[in-house]
Amino acid sequence: MRDIFLRACRGERTAPVPVWFMRQAGRYLPEYQEIRGKADFLTMCKTPELAAQVTLQPVDLLGVDAAILFSDILIPLEAMGAGLSFVEGKGPVLDPPVRSDEDFKRLHPIEPEKDVPFVLETIKILRRQLADRVPLIGFAGAPFTMATYLVEGGTTKSFVNIKKMLFSNPALFRKVMDLITDVTISYLSAQIDAGAQAIQLFDTWAGVLTRHDFRDAALIYARRIFNALRPKGVPMIYFVYDGGHLLDLTALSGADVIGLDWRTDVETALKSLGPDTVVQGNLDPCLLFLSEDRLRERISEIILQGLQAKAHIFNLGHGVLPEIPPEKVKLAIDIIHELSA
Amino acid sequence: MRDIFLRACRGERTAPVPVWFMRQAGRYLPEYQEIRGKADFLTMCKTPELAAQVTLQPVDLLGVDAAILFSDILIPLEAMGAGLSFVEGKGPVLDPPVRSDEDFKRLHPIEPEKDVPFVLETIKILRRQLADRVPLIGFAGAPFTMATYLVEGGTTKSFVNIKKMLFSNPALFRKVMDLITDVTISYLSAQIDAGAQAIQLFDTWAGVLTRHDFRDAALIYARRIFNALRPKGVPMIYFVYDGGHLLDLTALSGADVIGLDWRTDVETALKSLGPDTVVQGNLDPCLLFLSEDRLRERISEIILQGLQAKAHIFNLGHGVLPEIPPEKVKLAIDIIHELSA
Repeated sequence: MRDIFLRACRGERTAPVPVWFMRQAGRYLPEYQEIRGKADFLTMCKTPELAAQVTLQPVDLLGVDAAILFSDILIPLEAMGAGLSFVEGKGPVLDPPVRSDEDFKRLHPIEPEKDVPFVLETIKILRRQLADRVPLIGFAGAPFTMATYLVEGGTTKSFVNIKKMLFSNPALFRKVMDLITDVTISYLSAQIDAGAQAIQLFDTWAGVLTRHDFRDAALIYARRIFNALRPKGVPMIYFVYDGGHLLDLTALSGADVIGLDWRTDVETALKSLGPDTVVQGNLDPCLLFLSEDRLRERISEIILQGLQAKAHIFNLGHGVLPEIPPEKVKLAIDIIHELSA
Repeated sequence: MRDIFLRACRGERTAPVPVWFMRQAGRYLPEYQEIRGKADFLTMCKTPELAAQVTLQPVDLLGVDAAILFSDILIPLEAMGAGLSFVEGKGPVLDPPVRSDEDFKRLHPIEPEKDVPFVLETIKILRRQLADRVPLIGFAGAPFTMATYLVEGGTTKSFVNIKKMLFSNPALFRKVMDLITDVTISYLSAQIDAGAQAIQLFDTWAGVLTRHDFRDAALIYARRIFNALRPKGVPMIYFVYDGGHLLDLTALSGADVIGLDWRTDVETALKSLGPDTVVQGNLDPCLLFLSEDRLRERISEIILQGLQAKAHIFNLGHGVLPEIPPEKVKLAIDIIHELSA
C-alpha cells in the first residue's frame, strides 16, 4: 500500500509528503456531478455503491494519498432522531431544532449497525475496491459542531441559540453534548471496525468560542472521544476550523494530528502547538485560482514550513470549492508531490 | 465632557474604563424599533434627524461613554456608483457586483459634501445635541471589506469572488482597492471635519485572509488611510473581525487603538500586539445571556486582562444582538463601570 499518509500520521517525515484534500470528492468534478445528477445528496450518502464510487474518484483521477469516506457529518444526527433535509441554496435543515428539555427527549443513542448500516457498508466496499492502494479515512463531526446544527436548526451566522443554551441553560447543554459524545464514539468505533484506517473529527464551529469557553464547551468532549478511541490504534486527526486562537488548547485534545485551516500559517501555528506536532494543512482553497507559477511558490512555502513540524500531511485549509477547475486541483497535487519528493 | 474614551484612546489608563458597544444603537432597543417601524433602514441612515435620534438613544438610556454615528459601512459604496439595497432576511445586496474592468468603470470617487451630505449633517446635529456629554465616533469600512461587498455583491460564506479577483486578476483588484482607499480617506476626513472626535475602521472580512495575503491585500490599504488621516489629530481604531491570527500585523497599521473580537482574550492578544498597545474589546456578545453573577465574573476577567495593556476601552467583541434584553446591556455597562472604578 502507498502508506505515506499513515506513516506521516504516526510522526514519520515522508518524501513526498502525503496529500489529500477536504471535499476531494465533490461538485468540482464532472464525474461527481454525473452521479449527483441522478441522485440527491442524502441518497448518495445512503447508497453504499454510489458513496463508494464518488469516494474513489479523486483517488483514480487525481492521485491523492488517502481516500476519505463520502458522507455528511449530519448523518448521525438524523439517526439520533433529528429531522434532516438539505434545501438547495440554503444548506442543511434540522427541523425542529433542539432548544428545550422537551426537544431533547426526541433524541436517542444510536446502534451504528442498525441505524447507519449504509455508512459501514460503504467502508467495507471501499476497502475491497481500494485493495490497499491508499488508506481510507473515516470521519465525524465533533460534539460542539453537531450540537450547533441541532440547536440552531441548520447553519447560522450569530450562533445565538447554541450560545444562549450554553450560557443560560448549561445543564441542558451538557446533556446534549454528553449524548452526542457517546453517539460519536460508537459511530467512529463502528467505522474503524468496518475498516476505516484513520479518522478525522471536524470541529467546524468551535472556532466561534472564546478560549475560555472552548475548553469546557468543546475541547473536553473532543478529548473524551479521542481517549475512548485510542485503544483502536488508528491515527486520529482533530480539525478546528477558524481555530487559530485555540491552537495551544487543541494540542491537548489527544489527537495524533492537528488539522489547520488556511488562516494561520504552519510556522505561526507551530509556535502555539509546539514543534513535536504532526500537522495537516493548509493551502487556502482559493489559492487554486493562482497562475501555476504563483501557486508553486505558495505550495513551496507551506512545504518548507511543514518541515518545522514533526511530520506534515498536505491538505487544503478547507474543502475544495465547486468553482475550481479539476485540472488545477490535479496540478496542485502534482506540484506538492514533486516539490516534497 | 466625560472624556474617558478619548483619554484611553490616547493611551491613558482611566478609572473607570470607558465603555461603548458596537451596534449599541440597534434592534434590541424598543426605542430603536419604534423609529425603525416608521422608516426603512436606508431611509434612517439618510435622514439626519432620525440617524441622530437613534445614535443618542444608548447615550441617554444606557450611559455609554461614547456615541457612534448611526450609519452603514456600505453608504459610500452607493455614493461611488454601486447599486445598494437591503433585502429583509438576506442582508445587503450590491447589484450588479463588480467583477470586471467593465464593471469597474461604473465606479467613481466621491465628494462627501455633495454625495453623502446626510452623514455630515447627522454628525453636526449630534455634536450640538450631545453638547459635549460624550465624544462622537465616526466610522467607515476598511478597503478589503468594502471590496468584498462590492465584488461578492453582498455577504458570502466562501469569499470565492473577491479571492478569485485577488489571485487571478490582481491588477483589477488593486484598482478597486486604490479607489476605495481614496474614497475612504475623503469620507473619513469629511466626518472628522464635520465633528467626529474619533474614527473606527471596520475590517469585517479581512480575517478570512492568510497572514501572507492580509499584508498586501488589506493591511497596506488600511495603513494608507491611517497615515493620511493622522494630521487630523483624532484617535483612530482598527477593528479586524476574526483577526486573531493577524494581530501582530494589525499592530503595524498605524491605528492608535486595536479592536479585538471576542475570540482571542486580551492577555493572549497582547502577546502578539505587545503591551504598549491600547486595546478595545472584547466580551462575547452572547455572554450577555449569562446570569448576573457569571456575567460579572467574565467582565472582571476582561477588565483585569485589560490592565496588562497600555490602556483599555471596554466593548463587545462584535455588535449587540437583537435577542439581548436591553436591561442586560445596561447591567453589563453598570458592572463594567463599577468593577473598573
